[in-house]
Amino acid sequence: MDAPASASASGPIGIIAGSGILPDLVAEAAIANGRGVFVVALDGFADKTLTAYPHIWARFGEAARILRQLRSAGVRDLVLVGGLTRPAGLGYLRDVGLSVLWRALRNLDLFGSGDSTMLQRIVTALEREGFNILGAHEVAPDLVLPPIDLGAVSPNAKTQTDITRGFTAALGLGALDIGQGVVVARGRVLAAEAAEGTDAMLARVAGLRAQAARDGRRLKPLGVLVKAPQPIQDIRVDMPAIGPETVEGVVNAGLVGIAIAARRVLVLDPEEVRRRADEAGIFITAREISGAGESTGE
Amino acid sequence: MDAPASASASGPIGIIAGSGILPDLVAEAAIANGRGVFVVALDGFADKTLTAYPHIWARFGEAARILRQLRSAGVRDLVLVGGLTRPAGLGYLRDVGLSVLWRALRNLDLFGSGDSTMLQRIVTALEREGFNILGAHEVAPDLVLPPIDLGAVSPNAKTQTDITRGFTAALGLGALDIGQGVVVARGRVLAAEAAEGTDAMLARVAGLRAQAARDGRRLKPLGVLVKAPQPIQDIRVDMPAIGPETVEGVVNAGLVGIAIAARRVLVLDPEEVRRRADEAGIFITAREISGAGESTGE
Repeated sequence: MDAPASASASGPIGIIAGSGILPDLVAEAAIANGRGVFVVALDGFADKTLTAYPHIWARFGEAARILRQLRSAGVRDLVLVGGLTRPAGLGYLRDVGLSVLWRALRNLDLFGSGDSTMLQRIVTALEREGFNILGAHEVAPDLVLPPIDLGAVSPNAKTQTDITRGFTAALGLGALDIGQGVVVARGRVLAAEAAEGTDAMLARVAGLRAQAARDGRRLKPLGVLVKAPQPIQDIRVDMPAIGPETVEGVVNAGLVGIAIAARRVLVLDPEEVRRRADEAGIFITAREISGAGESTGE
Repeated sequence: MDAPASASASGPIGIIAGSGILPDLVAEAAIANGRGVFVVALDGFADKTLTAYPHIWARFGEAARILRQLRSAGVRDLVLVGGLTRPAGLGYLRDVGLSVLWRALRNLDLFGSGDSTMLQRIVTALEREGFNILGAHEVAPDLVLPPIDLGAVSPNAKTQTDITRGFTAALGLGALDIGQGVVVARGRVLAAEAAEGTDAMLARVAGLRAQAARDGRRLKPLGVLVKAPQPIQDIRVDMPAIGPETVEGVVNAGLVGIAIAARRVLVLDPEEVRRRADEAGIFITAREISGAGESTGE
């Protein structure tokens, strides 16, 4: 599963690149593993650092041109990776961009379904075009964790209860195609993530804590951020991710750690995540979670 | 169901009063219906206007004294109503206060469950003490709506889809004991409510919209706030509510209306809610929702 078992192992890996550092990390790993890459840098989303690789810039609407260029570059294995929102846009109406791509492919209306359904349709359309869709973690296996505690700190017995409740809540939210993350403290879900994203959710919990402090309640750090892919989610194209800034957000929210689904949540820069977690004295634990992101045809 | 069918119809109605105007509205309705009231105003939560009624002030910890005073006032029917957070506290660690009351009653640890489970245990304990627990809507039936559109505006066909998706999501969140409200736009859940409350959730959506506007995307009003009681929730003691300020929040968030479960969501000051909704051109629709707050023994 972690190894690129389903890869065609010939031709460059095509990378349809949204925002963030993930496309770069995937390209780097592909090259380190002896595969070439061909990057389709999505205009307005992708980072300019990607011009270091063979690439084209393209807009969402240019689906026909994208497919043509991928084919003439000899691409069969394809990775869709990176954010599909402008960094400032925080997921609001993320579907607008996607729908343009989709309309170009099939001229259907995507509204009326959540993100997972939409992405699944895009994947199906690309597969019908003959491409083999890989997950970022299949090209770059170092971006996911086996079931371990990453740093020096492990969750204590009390926190286990919050972790268990968190995975139940996160998978439940996921099944409803709402989101991938929750914050749980003392068995209670303090925040549930939808379109605003993890950072905004953590900032909200920090705000609740600050309010409690102004009310004169002194609170020790407690509670945990839990992230898991949606059960209905194709983790090849929409995998949850944490990174160093997630650790910062968790510390600012007064939480004691982060729990993620093993092998099914991307960890951007695991070494830096570990370093910051150890420095802050919080845990990062990856758990074997059944039901998380399993409908991937793996 | 709306009529106080299960009321003892003798003695004053006991009102254990948290924060907000709801205890006052319930007391008013009880008196208008020819019943007396006896208010237990919870110290630090209840409004001082309640001193207009026969009352005592009491702290959470004083469970024994509360029970004694209720009994000597001849109370058999009991309403638990109003917020159990300081207005500024917004629900964070709301369970702390409740747990003190509960510990006094049964000396059990409530952590490890959500709000609904906790409240249900408190209700069970009070019932064992011989009290008959009524919902606010049973004492004050005018505070809930039959299945109608409240004002001049009705949802259009497109918005129906968001409403349906919203009730599914809200009941799903409820079944997970996470929250009671969601904001849905074009089939996508933009925000899910947990401890922060409806007003903060609406402010978040307003923020996402403002961000989209800064990104140069002009958005027409769209999307809907949907509120429904949790399926596992005893609506006698933890009914969702909307009021005039909810209408303000919905307008600021750029939404087109509010959908609530008929008979299972309190509408504080329905006349003012209708007036402001009409003024803003948004709808307030109450729907017959199966599965919402049905485990009440009604």
